[in-house]
Amino acid sequence: MKAKVYVMPKNGVLDPQGKAIAHALGTLGFEGVGEVRTGKVIELELAETDPQAAKAAAEAMAKKLLANTVIESFRVELA
Amino acid sequence: MKAKVYVMPKNGVLDPQGKAIAHALGTLGFEGVGEVRTGKVIELELAETDPQAAKAAAEAMAKKLLANTVIESFRVELA
Repeated sequence: MKAKVYVMPKNGVLDPQGKAIAHALGTLGFEGVGEVRTGKVIELELAETDPQAAKAAAEAMAKKLLANTVIESFRVELA
Repeated sequence: MKAKVYVMPKNGVLDPQGKAIAHALGTLGFEGVGEVRTGKVIELELAETDPQAAKAAAEAMAKKLLANTVIESFRVELA
């Protein structure tokens, strides 16, 4: 079973990479670009076949390793 | 209008960060974790209000700056 963990910086947390992308897009001639925020996707191939258990496992992994919950929020999606 | 660009390494492209995460999850006691792949999410706030034009703009940005299309594939989602 595949799980995708999306990790994004929380609101109010500075995102220098996003700022750099916004600036670069402006330099390249793209107009009308406002705020840009960057995050991570982690695709996990899990042996677990029960969707509920797989989701719980992915959430535990996110809390323990994949996301820094002080400054990042995460969301788990099964696919 | 908000657009999300998901960038993932293409199949067959090595993903050392994913490998490191898989190894770390094993060390932390998480079992049944197979392949792990990591990618990026870029959330763009666009002034464009027409969904089709916004999607086209986000795709152009992805091709030009956000993704390295030699080794990465991308997907645009409007939100």
